Parts: sequence; structure tokens; C-alpha cells
Amino acid sequence: MLATVIHAARDIRVEDVPDPVLSTGADAIVRVVAACVCGSDLWPYRGVTPTRQPHRIGHEFVGVVEAVGPDVRSVHAGDFVIAPFYVCDGTCVNCRNGVSTSCLHGGWWGSGDRFGGFADGGQGERVRVPLADGTLAVVPGPVSEDEIPGLLTLSDVMGTGHHAAVSAGVSPGDAVAVVGDGAVGLCAIIAAKRLGATTIIAMSRHPQRQSLAREFGATHVVEERGDAGVEAVRALTGGIGADRVLECVGTKESMDQALRSTRPGGMVGYVGVPNGGPELPVRQMFDRNVGVNGGVAPVRGYIEELLPDVRSGAIRPGRVFDLELPLRDAAEAYAAMDERRATKVLLRP
Amino acid sequence: MLATVIHAARDIRVEDVPDPVLSTGADAIVRVVAACVCGSDLWPYRGVTPTRQPHRIGHEFVGVVEAVGPDVRSVHAGDFVIAPFYVCDGTCVNCRNGVSTSCLHGGWWGSGDRFGGFADGGQGERVRVPLADGTLAVVPGPVSEDEIPGLLTLSDVMGTGHHAAVSAGVSPGDAVAVVGDGAVGLCAIIAAKRLGATTIIAMSRHPQRQSLAREFGATHVVEERGDAGVEAVRALTGGIGADRVLECVGTKESMDQALRSTRPGGMVGYVGVPNGGPELPVRQMFDRNVGVNGGVAPVRGYIEELLPDVRSGAIRPGRVFDLELPLRDAAEAYAAMDERRATKVLLRP
Repeated sequence: MLATVIHAARDIRVEDVPDPVLSTGADAIVRVVAACVCGSDLWPYRGVTPTRQPHRIGHEFVGVVEAVGPDVRSVHAGDFVIAPFYVCDGTCVNCRNGVSTSCLHGGWWGSGDRFGGFADGGQGERVRVPLADGTLAVVPGPVSEDEIPGLLTLSDVMGTGHHAAVSAGVSPGDAVAVVGDGAVGLCAIIAAKRLGATTIIAMSRHPQRQSLAREFGATHVVEERGDAGVEAVRALTGGIGADRVLECVGTKESMDQALRSTRPGGMVGYVGVPNGGPELPVRQMFDRNVGVNGGVAPVRGYIEELLPDVRSGAIRPGRVFDLELPLRDAAEAYAAMDERRATKVLLRP
Repeated sequence: MLATVIHAARDIRVEDVPDPVLSTGADAIVRVVAACVCGSDLWPYRGVTPTRQPHRIGHEFVGVVEAVGPDVRSVHAGDFVIAPFYVCDGTCVNCRNGVSTSCLHGGWWGSGDRFGGFADGGQGERVRVPLADGTLAVVPGPVSEDEIPGLLTLSDVMGTGHHAAVSAGVSPGDAVAVVGDGAVGLCAIIAAKRLGATTIIAMSRHPQRQSLAREFGATHVVEERGDAGVEAVRALTGGIGADRVLECVGTKESMDQALRSTRPGGMVGYVGVPNGGPELPVRQMFDRNVGVNGGVAPVRGYIEELLPDVRSGAIRPGRVFDLELPLRDAAEAYAAMDERRATKVLLRP
């Protein structure tokens, strides 16, 4: 079968690889209907994270179950499923605490042989899903073609944006600022509106993304950054800053923007992977009682809550996909996202 | 009148100073009944914070109102009052948001002439209280002598311990660890129990403080620090760490202890003033979804909630005072706390 393999920075290839096989008893084989490229996939693509040997890549996909191992109970052949960007058992204490990304028995797509064989990435024709009962969320059928993009966002970006909003404690009536206009930032706007925020400030300089931000519920757009960005947010929030700020980038500059745009006593919810830092300025946080909460988003646990709103069309996160390509063009998908020609690319095997 | 003046590191003097006078119209003059020394007073005492010129010191006191300015409405001569460790108007947007330490018109005791004259410290015979309506909490009389220590803790340490617990989101049934066995840490134990924590782990090596911790509600004491401390907390919490950890010290080591003792998805509530750092390790927080929330405690807003429990004896934070001295012996009070011969010293003018 075909799957995407990263060989080195800017060297993405779609190659013939062995078909996945059931191996642990708790696996499922899923035929991928749609996958996509994540902003975090761009790190190895750009060489920020080194690629020491060629390996499978991709961690967001939806598909149809082809086969399950003898220990699998809740997933059946023929089911349409959403896979989160990680593997989890759904039963350990961390999963029960809502932190399935810290599952005691889980792990990451493409991360080696912990699960009884090569751990597939999500950008391929088929994937072996370890711990299928905990990992996969079944979408009750039938699933129509135009539902696919929205469902696919539940594998990562919609759940991640939601996690930013939940971690920040967004509540009805809040003024919320969102730092980052990528797919996660845009989904964070959806999440903030869904949780009742009444002022939603999108920090974006990109005309198309500004437009989508407004469609998703942003009441204001701030193009300025740095001191000017802080002042612009304060001007929209009675002079004090936003109640909650959702940090959806992960750089030193974006976290600084978020912390300084938050009012005293407010909270930053952050989901942008802080690649190698930065450290947080605790004295600045302390003096103003600005908290920081969030992390790698436990999206598996959010699927059941968000799925009805996605299926009803109450929220339309699938709109973040602005380019669709066949799987064989995965290299172009990476290039388009790297060059910001696309916000998020959907891949069809 | 007599008041405490710091001249330099380890040079604390009780001196004759001018009597305070009403000056802004919104002031009250309070005759101090009891004051105390704060852990943070030890920083200038130890020279960690430089003392560039002699100035009044002290920021925790209770007393009786002697006079009020013509604009004061809610405080009257003869009232017994608690002063928080800062000045606030109680009406600005930050005060209304519960963050009176960020009052737009407030400030700190001893911090200069912002309020129409010399800003007194709390360790003296009398204090001019600016913004008296917002700053002072009236204790309905009569107030008995044995209530004084408990009421005095509401000026800082009890409210600060409570802020750690509130910031961490302590809820019924939680497992809570408390880093720091000073007066704030001990009060944080009271607060955690009061908010319903069922496992409360005091991290302390000091026999008398361990004993008080248990009296206040600690179910376990951990003497180990560093890796061994983390392991001991995990062993008491099903192997994963405490739901909430209250950081009541403010050093790099104590924050590290707190972060690593928190379970995935848990929260550190911190109130230990981070003197000059340290910065927070964001990647460690991100990977485990451990949040950090807290800061300089807005204790003024907690007095009304905590006062009934202090007066009824349901909580007994006044037990943190283990030494009482006349005001004229303030230098000895500082030395006793510096050398850890006393947890907290009460001063009587």
C-alpha cells in the first residue's frame, strides 16, 4: 500500500510500504478515507526537529474499519471512525482524569514498535490502530461525503482549539483573544463562541484567515503585534486586557503576546507546542495573577461532546481545509502549508 | 509615635516618627492593635532586596479606627478593622474582577507618597490608611482578645493560603500537596481542607510545623525533597501525583517540586513570591498538561468569606503565631523568623 514517509527536511515521499496486519489482539485495521497535514508536521519538514532515519508521518485521519483483533469490543468492521492524534486505552487513571494524552499505555503515531510492530503514521492508505477500543471514536452511520472535513478536524485541530478554550476557562460573556490564525487558532474561535464568549478578538494579518475568523465568530480582528497588539486588545476590553487568551502558536513571541494581552486575574489557555522553549516569565505572571493552563490536547475525550455540533452544522470547523490533494501529492501538501499557501491540506488516499 | 524602620540589611529599628494625619479625605487613621512580620519582609532584611534608603516596613495589621476623612463612608471611628497587605479602592474594574492587588488606584504599604503623603508601614503604633472604604474590612464588634491572632492572619497569610487553593482549583475529594511549611503553607493546608480536599500532603521537615500541619488537616507528611519527594507524593496518590499542588515558597526548587508532584492534567496554585525568577519550564508543563495559576493574593476580597469561619473557630489560622513580642522588639522578631526560631511573630504596639 502507499504511505507517506519523511526522509529528511523537505524530503517527503509517498512510497510503497507493507500492508498493516493485526498483531496485538487489541488492534484495528482502518482504511483511511481522509488524512491531513498538521502544523506540527512542518517541524521535521523544516528541519527544526531532526529526522535521523526515514519514518512514517501523519497523525490525523478518519476512515472505515476493515478488521479488528479478538480483544476489540467497541469497534467493528464497517464502522466509520475518527482517530485522535495519539493512541490511548481510555481506561487508565490519566484517561479517566480526562488527560488521555498522558495515557499510561498509549503513545504517538509513527513512534516505533511499542505496540507490537511498526507504528503507522496517519498519511497512508491503511493504518493499524493499537488499543482500538480506547483510541477510535465511532461515528454512527451513514456518513456523507460532505461531512468528512468536519469529522477530520475532530482528530486534532477542532479538539485542540477547544482544549485551549477549556483550559483558559472560557465562560459565557467573556472577552477572548486568540493568538494564531492557523487551523487551531481558527478552531479556537469556534470553541470560544461555542462556550459563550461575547467578545472574540482574532489576532491575524492574513485577509482570508481574517474572513474565516469572522465567519467562525470573531467580533474583532487585530492586525498589530507586540506592544501595539497589546494596546489594541486593551482598547477593545475596557483598557485591561482579555479575560481569556488562547495561545495557538507556540513561539516565544506568541506566548509573550498572549500573556501581556490578558487582564489581571485572567488565564492563558495554550496549545501551541512550545518547541524547545520558551520558558514562562513567572514574575510577570505573578504580579498580575495571570495563569497559564493547557498543553497537548486530549482530543479523544472531546469527540463525543463536539461530534453532535459538527454533524448538525452548528459549528463548521471543516472550513479550515482550503486545499485538497490526492495522497500521492503529499509533498506538495507540505510545501503549500510551509509556504502558507494553504491553511490546512486534506489528503485523499 | 513609634514605628519600625528598615535602614539596611539586618538593621531594623523602632523609631519615633511623626503621627499620621488625615490628608486625602478618603483616609482613616487606625490605631494598631496587632501587627506581624511577613516572610517577604525577610527579603530586605536579608539584603536580597536592597534597601536604598531608610523606610517604614510592615504590611499586616489589625486595629481600631481613630478618625476618618470626610469622604469615607463604610468605616467609622471605633470600628475594629483588618487591613490587607495593600491598598485598594474596591470599585475599579480589577477590584470588581476579584483582583484587588491590581487595583487601578491602589498600591503598597510603605511605597512612597502616591496617596498624599508618606505611606506608612504596618508595624507601628498608628497607620494612615488611604482609600479606607476599599481597603479596610470592618469586624462587627465586640472583638475579644483571643480573636486577635486569627483576625490578623486575614491581612495576609490565611487569605494567601486560600488564594493558592482557589487558584489551583481545589475541589471536594481532591488530593492536594502543599510545598512550604511557613505560615502561608500551613494556612494553605487549612484552605485545602476547608475546600474539601480529602488527601492533604504537607511537605515539611520541621517537627513542630509537621504537628501544626496535621492539626490543620494534613493527612500525610512528606519529609523528602527533590526526586524522592516527587516519588513520595506519587506513592500517596495512586502513582500519578497530586490533583492540585500549592506552592507557598517561591524558589526555583520549590516550584520544580510543585510542578513535578502534580499529576497530568493537574494544577499548581502558587503564591510564593518568585524573587527574581525562576522562569517556568513550559515544555514540561505542556507535555503533562500541568497548569500554573496564582500570584500576589487578592486577600481583601477573601476576608468576608473567611471571617465567619475564623470567628466561629471552624478554622484556627491564628495558631501560626508562635511568638509574640512588643513592637519595640521588632528587630528580635525579624531575627527569630530569619533564623527559623519562629514561624510567625505577632507584634503588639
